[in-house]
Amino acid sequence: MRSYEVKNRTNVDDIKSLRLITAIKSPYLPDGRFDLEAYDTLVNMQIEDGVEGVIVGGTTGEGQLMSWDEHIMLIGHTVNCFGGSIKVIGNTGSNSTREAIHATEQGFAVGMHAALHINPYYGKTSIEGMISHFNGVLHMGPTIIYNVPSRTGQDIPPHVIHPISQNPNLAGVKECVGNERIELYTNAGIVVWSGNDDQCHDSRWDYGATGVISVTSNLIPGLMKELMFEGKNPTLNSRLIPLIEWLFHEPNPIGLNTALAQLGVVRPVFRLPYVPLPFEKRAEFVGIVKELGRENFVGEKDVQILDDDDFILIGRY
Amino acid sequence: MRSYEVKNRTNVDDIKSLRLITAIKSPYLPDGRFDLEAYDTLVNMQIEDGVEGVIVGGTTGEGQLMSWDEHIMLIGHTVNCFGGSIKVIGNTGSNSTREAIHATEQGFAVGMHAALHINPYYGKTSIEGMISHFNGVLHMGPTIIYNVPSRTGQDIPPHVIHPISQNPNLAGVKECVGNERIELYTNAGIVVWSGNDDQCHDSRWDYGATGVISVTSNLIPGLMKELMFEGKNPTLNSRLIPLIEWLFHEPNPIGLNTALAQLGVVRPVFRLPYVPLPFEKRAEFVGIVKELGRENFVGEKDVQILDDDDFILIGRY
Amino acid sequence: MRSYEVKNRTNVDDIKSLRLITAIKSPYLPDGRFDLEAYDTLVNMQIEDGVEGVIVGGTTGEGQLMSWDEHIMLIGHTVNCFGGSIKVIGNTGSNSTREAIHATEQGFAVGMHAALHINPYYGKTSIEGMISHFNGVLHMGPTIIYNVPSRTGQDIPPHVIHPISQNPNLAGVKECVGNERIELYTNAGIVVWSGNDDQCHDSRWDYGATGVISVTSNLIPGLMKELMFEGKNPTLNSRLIPLIEWLFHEPNPIGLNTALAQLGVVRPVFRLPYVPLPFEKRAEFVGIVKELGRENFVGEKDVQILDDDDFILIGRY
Amino acid sequence: MRSYEVKNRTNVDDIKSLRLITAIKSPYLPDGRFDLEAYDTLVNMQIEDGVEGVIVGGTTGEGQLMSWDEHIMLIGHTVNCFGGSIKVIGNTGSNSTREAIHATEQGFAVGMHAALHINPYYGKTSIEGMISHFNGVLHMGPTIIYNVPSRTGQDIPPHVIHPISQNPNLAGVKECVGNERIELYTNAGIVVWSGNDDQCHDSRWDYGATGVISVTSNLIPGLMKELMFEGKNPTLNSRLIPLIEWLFHEPNPIGLNTALAQLGVVRPVFRLPYVPLPFEKRAEFVGIVKELGRENFVGEKDVQILDDDDFILIGRY
Repeated sequence: MRSYEVKNRTNVDDIKSLRLITAIKSPYLPDGRFDLEAYDTLVNMQIEDGVEGVIVGGTTGEGQLMSWDEHIMLIGHTVNCFGGSIKVIGNTGSNSTREAIHATEQGFAVGMHAALHINPYYGKTSIEGMISHFNGVLHMGPTIIYNVPSRTGQDIPPHVIHPISQNPNLAGVKECVGNERIELYTNAGIVVWSGNDDQCHDSRWDYGATGVISVTSNLIPGLMKELMFEGKNPTLNSRLIPLIEWLFHEPNPIGLNTALAQLGVVRPVFRLPYVPLPFEKRAEFVGIVKELGRENFVGEKDVQILDDDDFILIGRY
Repeated sequence: MRSYEVKNRTNVDDIKSLRLITAIKSPYLPDGRFDLEAYDTLVNMQIEDGVEGVIVGGTTGEGQLMSWDEHIMLIGHTVNCFGGSIKVIGNTGSNSTREAIHATEQGFAVGMHAALHINPYYGKTSIEGMISHFNGVLHMGPTIIYNVPSRTGQDIPPHVIHPISQNPNLAGVKECVGNERIELYTNAGIVVWSGNDDQCHDSRWDYGATGVISVTSNLIPGLMKELMFEGKNPTLNSRLIPLIEWLFHEPNPIGLNTALAQLGVVRPVFRLPYVPLPFEKRAEFVGIVKELGRENFVGEKDVQILDDDDFILIGRY
Repeated sequence: MRSYEVKNRTNVDDIKSLRLITAIKSPYLPDGRFDLEAYDTLVNMQIEDGVEGVIVGGTTGEGQLMSWDEHIMLIGHTVNCFGGSIKVIGNTGSNSTREAIHATEQGFAVGMHAALHINPYYGKTSIEGMISHFNGVLHMGPTIIYNVPSRTGQDIPPHVIHPISQNPNLAGVKECVGNERIELYTNAGIVVWSGNDDQCHDSRWDYGATGVISVTSNLIPGLMKELMFEGKNPTLNSRLIPLIEWLFHEPNPIGLNTALAQLGVVRPVFRLPYVPLPFEKRAEFVGIVKELGRENFVGEKDVQILDDDDFILIGRY
Repeated sequence: MRSYEVKNRTNVDDIKSLRLITAIKSPYLPDGRFDLEAYDTLVNMQIEDGVEGVIVGGTTGEGQLMSWDEHIMLIGHTVNCFGGSIKVIGNTGSNSTREAIHATEQGFAVGMHAALHINPYYGKTSIEGMISHFNGVLHMGPTIIYNVPSRTGQDIPPHVIHPISQNPNLAGVKECVGNERIELYTNAGIVVWSGNDDQCHDSRWDYGATGVISVTSNLIPGLMKELMFEGKNPTLNSRLIPLIEWLFHEPNPIGLNTALAQLGVVRPVFRLPYVPLPFEKRAEFVGIVKELGRENFVGEKDVQILDDDDFILIGRY
């Protein structure tokens, strides 16, 4: 599929310069379908607080629990409603090359500004296979490669990234392996976003990272903006650590889903296999909000501790 | 799925006032996937010649040969590229209520301005079932109901349309049964578009139709614009009849597909079960183009008679 | 996809000799999914009363309301559970050649004995297109062609059937156009099944039809067996007419769905756009059952008149 | 979906007693579709050499590269052709609970004897979420839980397995973590299959494992049968290690795909992201075959070293 429309062409440099990108949460109605009204509110709050881009259907947004038609629809919806105010980066990656190709074609066709691509998790492949996989999609448009071995079971090593970085469509790397790896890339002129909220301050100010692709910014976009834009600030960074540790106590987005429900900005609906954090952790969150200041968090309702019965867990949707 | 974004809200009156809507052709690459570059060119030519709306994935656009993810993608793509210049009406109808509900939700979510809905063809249902079917989707946004018994095997009778016309989301009816039926509706204040190019002049000027949802306008948008906007013109109307008769000699879009390929604006690729018109009919088309004037047709290449071998027919895509 | 396993090979003659084939009803659970327990009971009752084949996912079985994965699953399930006792004919036809090819490959791969193929309804095509469509699937295995212009909007004329009848995979034609057409084919040695329960007695005994593909046999398999096997019987035929007229008062399977629910053999769950017959028609059915004898109908519960509130109508499933 | 047919009921004890299960390879035609003829040959050779069960669409069979309809079709096909001779275990697991539920329902409906379930890889979840995920599918029929943290990024710890082992549908665990973990389970009376071919001899004879779910048995079913059935045999085990090390030099099934192509039993067609082993490794395989004896491997053609040009790599299929 090819389209020559100028408005579909995003300059890769526009992606490279983004400092704060949120891996946006996907909220649900009680029957498990998307709650687009809540979603639009979430994205609006991100825009108002200075976030420059969103990852749609990342692991945080639970792309792995979407059918592809839901996924592409959500990308198209986000472009249509917010594409003029924020960069829309679709997670059209997959462990199946066929699916990655198809989804990436469709994502660019509906106007996404860039694609996020993961290496083939679970199924895994050889280094040659990994390179073939990425080459199958890189020609389509601006691309961010995502390395998170703790999820994929396989590191994307520098000797894969270096040749790929020659491709003019490579915007950069979302790297979760740590600051040493980040520095290796930034020294070579490769754009990197930290994929770890607890490290992103140092990545940004000490290791050359351009910014962060953040989960925490779903909750405190303004403070994350400050952290990425306003210069080195170890004090602020330290203040955020308890929240970040709470968020990642269980695999993301379990903490985020629980937090946003307790802040009253999304319904307490979970698509399985995600379930809410237990009561004591939910109580802990209220304390964290008070400590950091409710006004720094998204939404306007009082933060509350939800009961077990408040949550709806859904297996068929 | 609910979205409150203002830009997604199209006023139903904006749909009601459209006089010339094209049921746009979907062009293909040699492997059967969409040729979006050609598609964008087609839509651009429509816009330049004054067409006000497009039906995406209608029977003309071969929605019945698309997977739903292709179909919704094409709607989202059209909105993203051209939604500011032309009204995008997605054919999210189906003979399955489930599919109609799902596709219509998705279509509005990616920004389509209105939905086109057909009664349950082939499977058919009772009058009560037909009303339930339409009621399942009418609340979602501006809607055009499409009546074409020669395809569906079942008329949508006035006693179905009249109660539905009370719904503020009903923009109007695309009616193929004839001018008597059209007049019945327009007398009752219901907006109607002719679905028959050979009758649309009279429907518009003598029977109260607002305009036409046209196949022929894919080829001669400017002349169809004149026919719908510039007052009664039986001379022009008569001049167009040979083209229209040629176009509908076989079930649409067989003639249209053949014509656009010979005009050099789409590749000669057919998704089965459509096949090109035979040679003698293809030769006839060249004569019709010369008679009406090449400059009135879309595209700039010389019209040519394609050989059988020029066509690619595809069953797997 | 190719498989050489002998058990997957059904001789086309085994299909040609079937006299009584039921277009089997697909029953649902209250959430709209298949009720396989009820389905298995229905099929078992067919086998016990001498029915020789079932059409899975025909228009009666509401294949048009299934996703293809549901459809193929139901074919595979039927083969797995009953394939040794009854011929399983999957309705893998579609108005999309791509879908027909894919579904037919999958249907034969999971063991169906024959495919039922319809001409491209709704979208329609030329005679050449229709032949290309059928040629795309005929090589895969034993095939029955289904002609029902009142649903498809387009007749399959004899000049399409005659050349196709040379294909050794053509088992025959399910013909709804009438006995004159049937006689035309049977005189030419083409196997025909009547697709009209009200005509099938005459088709069988006076016009050379091999048998019937029946809706009514869902309800009274034993009597239909008698009608097709035990010789000319105008008395029995006349006795059945009131039931058949009641069944087809509204588009099939509305009457059948209502009847089976009132006989207590399926739950009163309808997938939209089908809705139950109104109360007075439901009451009428009880009289018909008493007239013909409850013991001639499937199931063992008393026939009852269901209330409007007893029915569950489902749009999302 | 519920079915009461007796032939669909497999006793969980029939699964528990299997000693040699092959994670069967899925072979492809040059256009990327399944080559069912080659598949049937592969399964037949497994049956002839005494293999008792197959995993259909496991990671070895590249279930992660299948659409779900392909996957369920392959399960249904295997049941239909070979279900009387070998146990068919469908890998209907997923990191999405919805997909796992849907696929497992469909798999049992088409007759699979047991399901293989993985914990939510890539997306991951909490322990509570993992248990909810498994509980969503365990009630449907005999189940094997599969633990492979090197692929999933998350161990299934004993405190998840122990409570689940109380469920009468749990047949056992396919465990890749090692013999210490295996012994922990077998001491507790839980059935375990080794998921590591290089350890399976010891797992079976020294740590209480019932048997192996093997990749290597695709190639040498007879020798693997001997290894699992004929008593402790460290000599044979040592002889097999070079082959096993060769097979797992790159992520499985890269080695297996390369080997079967060179043995002439499948076409050299790879679905990306898998690519063949490089030339030197391909040459090495020929030596290994000669060392172990060609007659111990499946197929009858001479083993050959394929050229790079012999392989077809496919991204769209």
